[in-house]
Amino acid sequence: MAVGLHDFPLIPEIKGIRIGVAEAGIKKPNKKDVVLFELCEGASVVGVFTQNAFCAAPVRICQKHLGLAGSRYLLINTGNANAGTGKSGLDAALKTCEVLAHQAEVSVESILPFSTGVIGEPLPVAKIVAAIPKALDNLSGDNWHSAGIGIMTTDTLPKGSVRTFEFDGVTYSVAGISKGAGMIRPNMATMLGYVCSDIAMEVDVLHAILKDVVNKSFNRITVDSDTSTNDSCIAVATGMAGNAKVTSVSEPLAQAFIAAFTEVMQELAHAIVRDGEGATKFVAVEVVGAAIESDATKVAFEIAHSPLVKTALFASDPNWGRILAVVGRSGVESLDVDRVQLHINGFEVARDGGRSPDYLEEHGKQAMAPQEIHIVVDLGMGSESDTVWTTDFSHDYVTINAEYRT
Amino acid sequence: MAVGLHDFPLIPEIKGIRIGVAEAGIKKPNKKDVVLFELCEGASVVGVFTQNAFCAAPVRICQKHLGLAGSRYLLINTGNANAGTGKSGLDAALKTCEVLAHQAEVSVESILPFSTGVIGEPLPVAKIVAAIPKALDNLSGDNWHSAGIGIMTTDTLPKGSVRTFEFDGVTYSVAGISKGAGMIRPNMATMLGYVCSDIAMEVDVLHAILKDVVNKSFNRITVDSDTSTNDSCIAVATGMAGNAKVTSVSEPLAQAFIAAFTEVMQELAHAIVRDGEGATKFVAVEVVGAAIESDATKVAFEIAHSPLVKTALFASDPNWGRILAVVGRSGVESLDVDRVQLHINGFEVARDGGRSPDYLEEHGKQAMAPQEIHIVVDLGMGSESDTVWTTDFSHDYVTINAEYRT
Repeated sequence: MAVGLHDFPLIPEIKGIRIGVAEAGIKKPNKKDVVLFELCEGASVVGVFTQNAFCAAPVRICQKHLGLAGSRYLLINTGNANAGTGKSGLDAALKTCEVLAHQAEVSVESILPFSTGVIGEPLPVAKIVAAIPKALDNLSGDNWHSAGIGIMTTDTLPKGSVRTFEFDGVTYSVAGISKGAGMIRPNMATMLGYVCSDIAMEVDVLHAILKDVVNKSFNRITVDSDTSTNDSCIAVATGMAGNAKVTSVSEPLAQAFIAAFTEVMQELAHAIVRDGEGATKFVAVEVVGAAIESDATKVAFEIAHSPLVKTALFASDPNWGRILAVVGRSGVESLDVDRVQLHINGFEVARDGGRSPDYLEEHGKQAMAPQEIHIVVDLGMGSESDTVWTTDFSHDYVTINAEYRT
Repeated sequence: MAVGLHDFPLIPEIKGIRIGVAEAGIKKPNKKDVVLFELCEGASVVGVFTQNAFCAAPVRICQKHLGLAGSRYLLINTGNANAGTGKSGLDAALKTCEVLAHQAEVSVESILPFSTGVIGEPLPVAKIVAAIPKALDNLSGDNWHSAGIGIMTTDTLPKGSVRTFEFDGVTYSVAGISKGAGMIRPNMATMLGYVCSDIAMEVDVLHAILKDVVNKSFNRITVDSDTSTNDSCIAVATGMAGNAKVTSVSEPLAQAFIAAFTEVMQELAHAIVRDGEGATKFVAVEVVGAAIESDATKVAFEIAHSPLVKTALFASDPNWGRILAVVGRSGVESLDVDRVQLHINGFEVARDGGRSPDYLEEHGKQAMAPQEIHIVVDLGMGSESDTVWTTDFSHDYVTINAEYRT
């Protein structure tokens, strides 16, 4: 059950990008599970990847290939993460790249592989190899919706976002898809996100923008605190819009791009939370009044990860004492609990180390009733802040994850 | 549903300790919810307390009183934590101490108050005050079982432990009770534990032993990663056994005491996990082969806190990839994933960064079937190790915590 997740938008063709989708039968029969992005020659391609030391085989190969050649294809499969598979996992991922490189007549290093699904099972190489020609035959500029479906695992809906902006009479497009619903606590990027634009932009500039914006989007969401082994987020600038290549983040065109790119990245990141496993609430946890930003980030994530806070959110129970208890155990140096204030959906709940004098239980019930919850904690120590987005913890989360492999 | 929790043991009288139990009607009518320990004059009394900055009012008063006078009474209520209650919470806790001090004809500072239950509600002082004379009338050396029941909140069973040991012809006793089932990730002590002995021991020696043993017992358990606001663990040595006061941890009698005390403390800590909210498994997570002990502790707690590992444990699903993913994201410096090994209940599951060559899914199923699970992760980096005890994550956990206040 997704919370306030919009329908997949109509994404127009992004010049320089074609997408092919195929059914390889990796997880279930007759399900799209292989997605192929074809990128025009000369496109700027950058990525950010999981910080998990047990990173998956395709992540390792991606990181290596990105430095060796211009990227021409993104080859994505679902149903199998090819993680925790050791040396044979690397061989398997490389084999699929070799087959595609041969058929598409490009170098192996110009292929970036991605996998998502069960950890620890051998990659079904033969099935993917058999699907590659079908995906190549299917290449088209109009396949964004199919691609959104093709990268889903426990997601209940495909996730896409698109923005256009004008600059000096030229219209630019930014579009992307993402997937993920569990094992979501991205640390550099999320469990597969792909954002493409027709803008012309130097690789280094695009990379700097991606790293910055990912910290305001994918790196600020959490479903269950578990950082995936396969997190990858790729940004592509095809250059087909025809502008003079952007060479600095301070150019006005770069700033216009960043605004649109941030909206797309945040919408894709929030979509993952809205479709979080078992989610019945979409929750923004905002911490203000911190002495340093890292304190705000830490407290926000601790609240977002607390099973007691998450089960109270599921019950729409204004058990605000659990939130204060998390603030207290978060390890903020020199915290003065008598200066902490708590608001939920606009209602002042706590101040001066305890319940607000005018707070009534019915305010709390009213505050917790909606599907969209905004928690604001003021630490009363300074002017730094941060926001993290998360979900509640429901029976369906337990069911989904207890039965994931059955 | 508690996992392998033994019946409350027969605890004999500990000379110098009397216990009174009363029904104050704080949470529900006709339930024991006030427990009073009377300690003989001259007893050594020490405590360790929560590290949560939002520590409860009674915790603050306990810490202050311990330094001001010899402790004569422990006054405990359930149903209300008196945490997140600000200045008025301190006044309320002090008021109950004053009433007891007056009736028992001792100083206010010789009373240690403890509370457990819902956070953020005002303490029902009048109900506790009314119960104090009943508890005083009820004082007896035989009330350990009633006391175990009297301090329960979401616990399904009372928790007690007792050991005796002989030294130089004298028999010594060590006995204790504990409570706690949710908001369990003690950091210094657990949500109420009381261990008493008739040994004579200097306060400083008893304190040093308590701090050390708590790190091998209560500080190594976790149910849901949420450190409580009220964690308190008290050790009492009445001195009624008649030995020459122990003045150093290196004395042979101190060593004999530590052995018995550690067994009691671990049994009480494990009992909390066995009765963890919604628990269907009792899980020991042992991390060996660490370069430094703090790495082992960190990895063990990260595994024990992972919602994905916990839901797989609930399903008895050998989804061992989730355990490797946690090891990978735990932030161990210089971790070489190719040296990591994983055993579950004696079955080798993973080595060399992937699945063990001889591992079969049926081994995993066999390993995960019992109620008692022993996970061993070898980091392959050194010889340090640590063990943490935890539970799985079940539907009942969500139900209990979504409906806690209803």
